[in-house]
Formats: sequence, structure tokens, C-alpha cells
Amino acid sequence: MKTKEKHPTVAFLGPKGTFTQQAAIKFFSKRKAKFLELESLQEVFEAVAEGKATYGVVPVENSVEGSVNLTLDLLYKSNLKICGEILEEIKHSLIVNRGTDKSKIKVILSHPQALSQCRTYLDENFPKAKRKEVESTASAVRKLKRMKNAAAIGTELAAKIYGMKILEKNLCDWPQNLTRFIVLSQSDSKPTGKDKTSLIFSTKDVPGALHKALEPFASRSINLTKIESRPSKEKPWEYVFFMEFEGHRKDEKCAEAIGDLRSLCEFLKVLGSYRRAS
Amino acid sequence: MKTKEKHPTVAFLGPKGTFTQQAAIKFFSKRKAKFLELESLQEVFEAVAEGKATYGVVPVENSVEGSVNLTLDLLYKSNLKICGEILEEIKHSLIVNRGTDKSKIKVILSHPQALSQCRTYLDENFPKAKRKEVESTASAVRKLKRMKNAAAIGTELAAKIYGMKILEKNLCDWPQNLTRFIVLSQSDSKPTGKDKTSLIFSTKDVPGALHKALEPFASRSINLTKIESRPSKEKPWEYVFFMEFEGHRKDEKCAEAIGDLRSLCEFLKVLGSYRRAS
Repeated sequence: MKTKEKHPTVAFLGPKGTFTQQAAIKFFSKRKAKFLELESLQEVFEAVAEGKATYGVVPVENSVEGSVNLTLDLLYKSNLKICGEILEEIKHSLIVNRGTDKSKIKVILSHPQALSQCRTYLDENFPKAKRKEVESTASAVRKLKRMKNAAAIGTELAAKIYGMKILEKNLCDWPQNLTRFIVLSQSDSKPTGKDKTSLIFSTKDVPGALHKALEPFASRSINLTKIESRPSKEKPWEYVFFMEFEGHRKDEKCAEAIGDLRSLCEFLKVLGSYRRAS
Repeated sequence: MKTKEKHPTVAFLGPKGTFTQQAAIKFFSKRKAKFLELESLQEVFEAVAEGKATYGVVPVENSVEGSVNLTLDLLYKSNLKICGEILEEIKHSLIVNRGTDKSKIKVILSHPQALSQCRTYLDENFPKAKRKEVESTASAVRKLKRMKNAAAIGTELAAKIYGMKILEKNLCDWPQNLTRFIVLSQSDSKPTGKDKTSLIFSTKDVPGALHKALEPFASRSINLTKIESRPSKEKPWEYVFFMEFEGHRKDEKCAEAIGDLRSLCEFLKVLGSYRRAS
């Protein structure tokens, strides 16, 4: 990650008040960043590619729901690099217009993932309320303004931004609900000694191909932190693999493993090395 | 799969007219099946577990969008077996109320996956129309009845069921868009010589664990057709792997490979063996 730029522009998936914005604010807290709110993951990728923003922050994985598939697909297509990661604990709050009584709530708005993560809470507390899926937790909070007897599940930040009241906190059904965000840029980061590397590859469709592909990492005791398949979209049931491992691509044993893997692959792209989030 | 029962009850993800129903009708075409329309994937699993239905048909993977995460999560939790698979080509149609003019369409309804699969078509033909996400392609078609200047993306079956008009066919941006459905039951199927087996496992989080787990299959030249990680939901960044390979669990070399894998795993569950769809 470049550290010279004093006031970088950071694009994020809006609207204002999403978990993505919370994560971006945290990551860039020591630099006077300007935040650029965009409407879709695709627009965030484009803004960084076209230089409208130096960085982009997008969600890549949730510890309960799994990967954000569209982010993986955009990483596959784009030439951007990952230069950082952010871990953010997802704390859902029940948010209402000031004056709305809990017993009167008939409809609950949120992003489908947030609704699904609070399913047990909602079933117990609002067995009869209708659940309405909207584009983001923040837009759920924003939409409340024009509604009666409605509640939204969203962030504390969104409640603050839109002047709403928090009725209850920590609604999530799982005790630990974390989302990983990645920081996109034109280039990745320098080694820090506590790094991670992400890459994408595809193997030939022959027995044992994936086993062979993992061998360069297993034989060097490089710890894989994630491996996941996604459709290549070119031919049905052909996959590309997203893999992450501990170490920097410039570390000697990582560089050797990547080289060995490359010789076995039809396609390989290093997405970047960056400091691990703690 | 039991072949004795003459008029099995087949639960599927409704409403009527979804691709899931099309797939179920195709798979059970030679048996006078009774179809049971249910509202959620969870209800389909429950209906089969409780014996209200002999079979359940649910989508598991799309060749463009990837896995249906909720289906994988339900397979992980349930004790049901997979006894069959169905491949269905997804052909999206633009559907309207009779009398609606193409130039007047201001809103387009469908399931988020269908909207995303027709993105290029929609951008070119309806750059200004609002896109509205609903629960299923079939409910999009059903909702048209009460709307003006609206269109839905859905199946030909749904257009027929709800008495609507098809304006255009084959809207999908990709030439080949297939969805795999699985047939759930209390038990899996007998060997046919053209089988596939699905299982779930988790390894210890040590370097090389996944590489070791694949070794029993690679060394026996058993072809993996799919491997995918999902969060275990118990601890952040702990994964379970969904794996599929060619062969029946009772085939000698498959049985040996499963046995070897079991000895390396913290957890392993065979989801079933079944005849491959062509």
C-alpha cells in the first residue's frame, strides 16, 4: 500500500452507514481520507481502475454466510490488486423512527443476509411481522423515514446518520459474526512479516489436478487460510479456485510455491499480498 | 432411489412455475408423482425428513452463479440423502400482461439471480427501467397481474400457469446457463455404473491438511467434479468442504478412498450416491 498519499480518496459500497463504510473509516483512521459513496460493487472496482479513487473497500467474506460471490467474480475479471484487509464485527441493531413502539412493528426491512443472520431473534420477537428484503442495511434504515410501524436491521452508524432510534442491539443469532473486507488498489503492499497472499488459478480437469496444485504449498508448510471454487462462467462446471495463504508473494518459499503452482495451471493470477488483519 | 412407490409425493421450492418445478416434472415424468409446492428450501427439507413427501427437489448449483449456499448449509445440518440429480437449462423469458407494450415497461421484476443473469440484455433494452428483486421468478410473474407497465423475467411454465404473454425468449447473457437440482430422500440410490457421490468433511487446521485429504482420491484416479468450502458457522474462518466425485460409495476404490479420508477428518458425512445427470 502506498503510504505517501496524504488525503487518499476511498471508494466504498454505499449508501452511507453500511458496515463497509464502518470498516473503511476504521482502516483509514490515521489518514485524512475522503470517502466516495458508490452504488454497486462494480462501480467501486471501476472507480479504482479509472483512478477516480486510490482505494476501494468491498466486503469479500462473512464468517457465517460465506463469500460475497460478486466480489470474487469481479476480482477474477479485474486487474486490481488487494493491498489490505479489514475484519469488522457485524453487530446488528433494531432501528425505528423515534416514537415507534416495539409492539406495533408490522414490517422489518434489511439486507437478505442481515435478515437471515437474525432469523432466530426475529422468529421469537416478531413471529408475525413481514420481512422485506432491500439492497443494504443502510438503505433499510433510510427507507424507515417514510414508513409507519416499521423497523430496520442495520448499523449504529446508520441510525446516527439518519437520525433514528436504536431499540435493541446485538440481534445476531451467532455469537461471532465477522465480515472480512478487502482494500483494492492499483498495486499491493510491501512485506511486513505478517502477511497474506490471495490468488486465483484454474487447473486442467483431470483426476488429481487439485491435489497436485496444493502440493507446492503443503510440502513447504505454507498454511492455506482459504480455498474456494467459483464457476469459470466460460463452460458449465469448469471452476476457478480462489486461494489464500499465509506469507508474502516475495517471501522466498511463497515465491517458489507460486512458481511451482503456475507450471501446473492453465491460468494463475496473484491478486496481491497484504498485512493480515488481526 | 426407491422404485417401488407408484405415486410418490415430491416436494419442491414453489411457487408454481419455478425452474425447480420444471426440473421436478422432468425427473419424475415416468411416475405419476404428486407435487407439493412449498415456500422455502427449509420446508422442502423438513417435508422429506418428516415423511410428508418421499422426495424433495431443490436447486444446488448454477453454472454461472455458483452454489446455492442455503442448500449446502441445509445439507450439512440435515440427515437426508441425495438420491438423484437433474440438469436443467435455464431459459429466461420476458413476460408481461397481455396488452402491455414493450416500450412502456418501467419496472422489471425477478429473482436477483435472474436479473443478474440478464444484466446485459436489460442494460441494452431497458436502460431506464427499475429492477425489482422478488423471492422467485414465478412470484415475479404472479405479481404482474396487479401491475401496470411492468415485466417479469421467468419461465415459460410460469407464463402458461398465470396466463401471461411471452414478449421475448432466451434473454440470458451467457450461452450456456444450467442449474443442477438434487433429489432428496431418506436414502440414496443403488449403483448404476454411472454414478456420483457427494460428501461433506472438515479437516484439522494445519498446513497441508486439504492436500492430504485429497490424496486418497488422487492416488486412485477418482475424478473430483466439485470441491467447495463453506463456513462451519461454529468458529469464524473454520470451513467444511463439500466434495463430489465420480463413482458410487459402494464401488471398491471409492469405498477405500472414503475410508482413508475419514481417518484424516474431524468430521465426515456421505450425502449419498446417485446416477449422474447427463
